[in-house]
Amino acid sequence: MEAGLFSLEMQVRDYELDMQGIVNNSVYQNYLEHARHEYLKSLAIDFASLSREGLNLVVIRAELDYRASLTSGDSFRVTVRMERLSRLKFAFLQEIIRQADGKPIMAARIIGTALNARGRPEIPAQLDSIVPLPE
Amino acid sequence: MEAGLFSLEMQVRDYELDMQGIVNNSVYQNYLEHARHEYLKSLAIDFASLSREGLNLVVIRAELDYRASLTSGDSFRVTVRMERLSRLKFAFLQEIIRQADGKPIMAARIIGTALNARGRPEIPAQLDSIVPLPE
Amino acid sequence: MEAGLFSLEMQVRDYELDMQGIVNNSVYQNYLEHARHEYLKSLAIDFASLSREGLNLVVIRAELDYRASLTSGDSFRVTVRMERLSRLKFAFLQEIIRQADGKPIMAARIIGTALNARGRPEIPAQLDSIVPLPE
Amino acid sequence: MEAGLFSLEMQVRDYELDMQGIVNNSVYQNYLEHARHEYLKSLAIDFASLSREGLNLVVIRAELDYRASLTSGDSFRVTVRMERLSRLKFAFLQEIIRQADGKPIMAARIIGTALNARGRPEIPAQLDSIVPLPE
Repeated sequence: MEAGLFSLEMQVRDYELDMQGIVNNSVYQNYLEHARHEYLKSLAIDFASLSREGLNLVVIRAELDYRASLTSGDSFRVTVRMERLSRLKFAFLQEIIRQADGKPIMAARIIGTALNARGRPEIPAQLDSIVPLPE
Repeated sequence: MEAGLFSLEMQVRDYELDMQGIVNNSVYQNYLEHARHEYLKSLAIDFASLSREGLNLVVIRAELDYRASLTSGDSFRVTVRMERLSRLKFAFLQEIIRQADGKPIMAARIIGTALNARGRPEIPAQLDSIVPLPE
Repeated sequence: MEAGLFSLEMQVRDYELDMQGIVNNSVYQNYLEHARHEYLKSLAIDFASLSREGLNLVVIRAELDYRASLTSGDSFRVTVRMERLSRLKFAFLQEIIRQADGKPIMAARIIGTALNARGRPEIPAQLDSIVPLPE
Repeated sequence: MEAGLFSLEMQVRDYELDMQGIVNNSVYQNYLEHARHEYLKSLAIDFASLSREGLNLVVIRAELDYRASLTSGDSFRVTVRMERLSRLKFAFLQEIIRQADGKPIMAARIIGTALNARGRPEIPAQLDSIVPLPE
């Protein structure tokens, strides 16, 4: 595993499967979101606290490549790497990998920003120090 | 249909099915909740507005009888009747009925109360006037 | 509205909101999927029946642009237009638009294919006749 | 902890919260179901395999007592104890307990049976040996 890459291990739950017997498409976004929040928490940035203070981290674009499916009993890990795209935009590069055999399940690129209580872009100071703007 | 009974028509969505090809158990609670909120809205009680004002309607007990299953393509209606149990408790008697043949799918009894911002029971005035306390 | 464009009206349900008080990111994929399935059904292609016969329509890539958020009480419509990309690939171009003011909420491009029971790409005959291959 | 009691540790995920900032009512049923499936798996009974063989474990009644709420960041454990009610019925007695302080969050009694491919009650042999009928 790449040095410095955040990785969270999770397990498929049967209620996440759809009638095809595989994890439903929309559930992967839940997995990705949970891993991003845990990643941010590991950097002392708490999504829920920010939200209560009126500072909302929001997704503005998601690109999701579905490579293979997860099914009942599968363990998998979700990785996160964050990049600064501009003053107001961040990209989260994420992968979902099946534990048993390392099979890539999904590659995702999630672009986000932060909005303050007035709905205006405002980047939390903590994020600024973690992913500084390219000079 | 019983006079004065609130009824909401809905339709199964494929993402609500689980690997058994039927609507997952937990999804019925979503249906019931949506019908309760629409019912309350028809009485000019808006769950979301109350929540933003710090007054939270909460469920304290749910009794759910699963009679039969809904599956892809099914239309159904969810009924709601509200009863006052005590100064602080309300019961919602609800049924889910398949449209095509009137088959009963679920009978539910949901008991709720309301909590203010300090977590103390506090019944919104509108509810008091709609379902008065038994003398 | 564009001639021949499929459009489905839906309504936000309160259980779809997250702690930010807006519809959670992953829920939009549910909306999009439901509209695609209804669209296909309008063309006599039933996702659930195909699935039971071992022919699975699957998403291989999703591109989702989040323009604005839906919240409690919002009605919206989801549009669908299908394009043939190649012998084995289809694109669904979709939009989510708020009813009250026509505000664009999401633009999506969902690329899919179909897999038979052996996991091999196999396009259902009905799809072939609806969206013929470009010559 | 009671000897022989099955217990599964889980953690709240932010997408499970609703606009009140607490875990949505219906999500607890997901937690309970996941714990039951893990419990059964620990007894070599796999819900998904049974389902693929046409033997469906189904819930016929759920009684859920909501004692307190879980919120962002909470860890909790879900316990499971199974009882035989009759030849065709089982009860799962379950609790959800917050890890930080042992606070009871939910007590549940879930009654289930099993249906074969023709929709008739049929108890898998493994269950019969694990929870024998009272003489």
